[in-house]
Amino acid sequence: MINEQLLNPKSIVVVGASDDVMKPGGKILKNIVDGNFKGDLYVTNLKSDEVQGIKSYRDVADLPENVDLAVLAIAAKFCPQTVEVLAKQKGTKAFIIISAGFSEENEEGAALEHQIVNTINEVGGCLIGPNCVGMLTTNHSSVFTTPIPALEPMGADFISGSGATAVFIIEAGMAKGLKFNSVYSVGNSAQTGVEEVLEYLDNTYEEGKSSKIKLLYLESVNKPQKLLKHAASLINKGCKIAAVKAGNSEAGSRAASSHTGALASSDLAVDALFKKAGIVRCYGREELANVAAVFMVEELKGKNVAVITHAGGPAVMLTDALSNGGLEVPAIDGPKAEALLEKLYPGSSVANPIDFLATGTAEQLGDIIDACENDFNHIDAMAVVFGSPGLFTNEEVYKVLHRKIRECKKPIYPILPSVVNVKDDIEMFINLGNVNFPDEVLFGNALTKVYNTPKPVVITGGEEDLDVKALRRIVEAQPDGYVSPEVVQELLDVAGVPRVKEFVSDKVEDLLAAVAEVGYPVVMKVVGPVHKSDVGGVVLDVNSDEQLNAEFVRMMHLADATGVMLQPMITGKELFVGATYEPGFGHMVLCGMGGIFIEVLKDVSSGLAPVNQGEALEMIRDLKSYKIIEGVRGQKGIDENKYAEIIVRLSSMLMHAPEIKEMDINPLLGDGEKVIAVDARIRIQK
Amino acid sequence: MINEQLLNPKSIVVVGASDDVMKPGGKILKNIVDGNFKGDLYVTNLKSDEVQGIKSYRDVADLPENVDLAVLAIAAKFCPQTVEVLAKQKGTKAFIIISAGFSEENEEGAALEHQIVNTINEVGGCLIGPNCVGMLTTNHSSVFTTPIPALEPMGADFISGSGATAVFIIEAGMAKGLKFNSVYSVGNSAQTGVEEVLEYLDNTYEEGKSSKIKLLYLESVNKPQKLLKHAASLINKGCKIAAVKAGNSEAGSRAASSHTGALASSDLAVDALFKKAGIVRCYGREELANVAAVFMVEELKGKNVAVITHAGGPAVMLTDALSNGGLEVPAIDGPKAEALLEKLYPGSSVANPIDFLATGTAEQLGDIIDACENDFNHIDAMAVVFGSPGLFTNEEVYKVLHRKIRECKKPIYPILPSVVNVKDDIEMFINLGNVNFPDEVLFGNALTKVYNTPKPVVITGGEEDLDVKALRRIVEAQPDGYVSPEVVQELLDVAGVPRVKEFVSDKVEDLLAAVAEVGYPVVMKVVGPVHKSDVGGVVLDVNSDEQLNAEFVRMMHLADATGVMLQPMITGKELFVGATYEPGFGHMVLCGMGGIFIEVLKDVSSGLAPVNQGEALEMIRDLKSYKIIEGVRGQKGIDENKYAEIIVRLSSMLMHAPEIKEMDINPLLGDGEKVIAVDARIRIQK
Repeated sequence: MINEQLLNPKSIVVVGASDDVMKPGGKILKNIVDGNFKGDLYVTNLKSDEVQGIKSYRDVADLPENVDLAVLAIAAKFCPQTVEVLAKQKGTKAFIIISAGFSEENEEGAALEHQIVNTINEVGGCLIGPNCVGMLTTNHSSVFTTPIPALEPMGADFISGSGATAVFIIEAGMAKGLKFNSVYSVGNSAQTGVEEVLEYLDNTYEEGKSSKIKLLYLESVNKPQKLLKHAASLINKGCKIAAVKAGNSEAGSRAASSHTGALASSDLAVDALFKKAGIVRCYGREELANVAAVFMVEELKGKNVAVITHAGGPAVMLTDALSNGGLEVPAIDGPKAEALLEKLYPGSSVANPIDFLATGTAEQLGDIIDACENDFNHIDAMAVVFGSPGLFTNEEVYKVLHRKIRECKKPIYPILPSVVNVKDDIEMFINLGNVNFPDEVLFGNALTKVYNTPKPVVITGGEEDLDVKALRRIVEAQPDGYVSPEVVQELLDVAGVPRVKEFVSDKVEDLLAAVAEVGYPVVMKVVGPVHKSDVGGVVLDVNSDEQLNAEFVRMMHLADATGVMLQPMITGKELFVGATYEPGFGHMVLCGMGGIFIEVLKDVSSGLAPVNQGEALEMIRDLKSYKIIEGVRGQKGIDENKYAEIIVRLSSMLMHAPEIKEMDINPLLGDGEKVIAVDARIRIQK
Repeated sequence: MINEQLLNPKSIVVVGASDDVMKPGGKILKNIVDGNFKGDLYVTNLKSDEVQGIKSYRDVADLPENVDLAVLAIAAKFCPQTVEVLAKQKGTKAFIIISAGFSEENEEGAALEHQIVNTINEVGGCLIGPNCVGMLTTNHSSVFTTPIPALEPMGADFISGSGATAVFIIEAGMAKGLKFNSVYSVGNSAQTGVEEVLEYLDNTYEEGKSSKIKLLYLESVNKPQKLLKHAASLINKGCKIAAVKAGNSEAGSRAASSHTGALASSDLAVDALFKKAGIVRCYGREELANVAAVFMVEELKGKNVAVITHAGGPAVMLTDALSNGGLEVPAIDGPKAEALLEKLYPGSSVANPIDFLATGTAEQLGDIIDACENDFNHIDAMAVVFGSPGLFTNEEVYKVLHRKIRECKKPIYPILPSVVNVKDDIEMFINLGNVNFPDEVLFGNALTKVYNTPKPVVITGGEEDLDVKALRRIVEAQPDGYVSPEVVQELLDVAGVPRVKEFVSDKVEDLLAAVAEVGYPVVMKVVGPVHKSDVGGVVLDVNSDEQLNAEFVRMMHLADATGVMLQPMITGKELFVGATYEPGFGHMVLCGMGGIFIEVLKDVSSGLAPVNQGEALEMIRDLKSYKIIEGVRGQKGIDENKYAEIIVRLSSMLMHAPEIKEMDINPLLGDGEKVIAVDARIRIQK
């Protein structure tokens, strides 16, 4: 597990250090030295007494006692013994193993890895890797890769399941001014994976001292519940988390598994988990970098953005991106707008976008920002687009922008597109501690994505009226496979899901008595034959005693008939609720309208159990067919609270019955306040 | 109109040239000089005899005769007189006016602009601008902006409705290796707009000599039919066109009196036009640059891509992007795959993605590409991801890539993500004439977008059985407004759209006689009252003479009743066909399923008239509800050819009736081969 020795070691040893900085063992030492590591730095090398000007030990056994952190850049087969000596004799509590040749390669490698983890666990130490590029903190740069990005305590904590991808994301982020507090390349995650790092960041979070930005690159979600717990917790403490989970297509998961040896998780479950946790899901490096840069600006609190520009085109494209993503670029007018217009050159516009023309000055930009901050109360944020046709420098403009970003309470997003013409000015601006969005549309998409990501779901109890003992008794008594109709009913009753009444008998008098209770019309189904419909064993809309009698006689003569089931005939809109069990994630609960809505339009919402009432309502409201549930074209709708309650009840039941691997209630008929299960299937696997 | 003097002038005069290269009149002269313009270069300046070392004339009247191209960088008010002298006395046939202060500013400016256009038109000359940044060709760099991108005859022709945006797009494109044959900033498009430039490029296109790549940035489509004609023509000649049409969110919320009006927006018309023309629609600079770079690589002929990489992460994300966009990353196996694997380091994979590890060499890359080109017949293209962790240079690898791109017939897309670590190697690679995609996901999205853009629609006749004279007679006889039910029927009959039979009478005997013809059940509707349903004036499923008699009596007693209409009662799935008229674009025809599919799910396809049978089928197949039209859940579907034919017939009629501004047939009932219009509304405005 992550510890202080890893993050802020008093001493580091590079095992297998080299003079050749083109080799990992050389480059990692150089990076540590160049990063001005403040503690004691040791190196070992089998063949040298000095490496890069530092005294080298031939054997780790010769090192002084108490070396906090060891970075191993030696062949895999030598690692277990080296770790043993360091852990047991030198008090080393933190290890970064960059060497490859472990579980990612073959079984022998896996055995070595296992041995190393055991040794480190024995002393309560921490292992990053193996098969990784290392890690970076503000204290030490123990990576063998470049570039080393700007490091500062309020920068992002970035945890990556792929080393090369971490490098490329850092490279993509530098042009946007991304800064980092730490970078973890977890490699094979032998002891410490993305989830464990996140857990540590959560457990040690201190308001005001800890960074609020977390970035993740994952090719598999190994511990979904841990990820959910700590991501949600961090976000509830005020953090922002964005993640790429690669391998979301079928071919992509194949690519992911072939690379890491890890099984890809079902992508819908990942979506549901991220939504529940409040994680902003990204689909590429460039998008992640843009979202991270949005995180680095003050949080957007409303949906009204002022687009401030000296060039029309980007402002139009940005306005499109923001409005299409659900944000607004509202009109600005009134006396204060006119007062601002007075300060700009003729031909300018303050209507929003605020266009102060190609000739607009730094001073005018300052006036515009001040007006947006102080005078235009409905404006929640500013996006400033300012490039250069190459005639003049933008230094003054960018200095004003830098100052205003710090003076204003409203977030200001800088969009500086002239990455060639005013390259130096943009660099200056970034070096002053700002971010930059070179492309307005990628920025707009990132901002709306962040804005539209829901907050983490607050997980409450709410299963008070569930008889867990009864539920367990039923489930434990079942063999694997689909349970019988009677058991389906028992389970629905335990869950508290209203279901249509059913009466089964081989005597017509019983059925006639039942009709006296529920009234006509009724549905009759033969009991016994498997494919009831095919043999004429289902009759709808039975309306009289005579008809009931006749059908009863006919059905009892069907092959395998043992009785007849009778249900009151219910009408309503076809709904659907279902669940599947995703190993690690738990149950994923699905809802939607039935029939063509599922089969043709794939209009389904999903949530990860436990689903609470608010979440269930959100799931329902996310459906494309939601307006039909609300009631459309003069038709009565369906009580969404009742529908949501059924989703919640189902989810609560499933939390206590992990043996239920698949179930659906289909159809669930909804008619105003009546939402009633008509048929359901439940599959148990222990 | 564009002419040879503009593109390849023998002489240029810069009017208002300056020594100050921070001013447009100074910078544009410098750019022309730096661009090694081969012809005679003159300058004028009111106050100097020499500008930037070139002899300067005080007055354009003093210039030698025959100056092909004049670039004006003087105040707007001096432009008309200057143009007059140049056009009439100096034989100048091409003008670029970069000055602002014309129609974009006020009416006086518009008058000046008008005067200039008249003068230039009188001599049959060409005007670019005013209020633009100028233009670039391989012959002269008459822009006042930088950077000047790489220019070559097979580079892109780029036409931009916004000068600053053109600059920012060039900047964004440089990092991707975009090259240009020409750049036009059309400014106010006083004489020559985007459409006219495209027309010229189309009319002068020569296979093998003209560039095949056209890029457009538009904020409005002023001449949709011209754009459609020449874009489609160029693409049919083998060109590729990508365009950003900004301002797509402003449209859409117009008050309208029918479904169609509410669903249609001018942006939908832009979409329909681009689709018909075969233009790849982009939504931002970065996307346009990526698509343009895709254009610069050999055309992708199939959907199978080999992803070749030395780093897992980007390959997984790319595989996701490609598969989610409809391309495939198919498995590679067999003896030839095994032979390739032999040549790679242990741990490599050739299953696709082909991962040859962080230690993979240039030689191995060559082997992999050769195998994909020669041995793996099902592979249509290669995407090569190769970055650097910063340990070594990638020069050798990129040189192999450069060579293979030229040797191979299959397209090879280079994804070189390490824009920091191997910046110089990437620059070398681009300077060798290659493109680069720094982000694999943006590349993947661009490639799938290009792949999924349909070819231009071949516009054929196909209106043979339309009685145009009868149609015109009906339309011309109508006043503005919604036409009467009788006229709706006449129009449907002229168009050849099958409709339900209707009988109207104020005598019950007539209706009983009609029933004898069509049979029960029938629908009865009162004639006279406007809101028929509200007053109980619509009765469905009338099944007997008694019922018909009773309803007739009741209806004739309703206020304003003048008669009763009778229709046979038809059943089937509710379909919808409609059209609106977008000024300039012509009629946009919409189709979809009726009811909730339009009202709730907004599941509508659109096409620009004239729509042919193939296009109409494509529209139908694009619907989310298409599976229902095909027939689903054991239900009979609808004959899509019959449905398409109705769309085509409607479109043909509309081509001859521009006065029809809105119409919809709703419902159109479909049941197998029977597709019949039940009700329709048509609004005429002359």
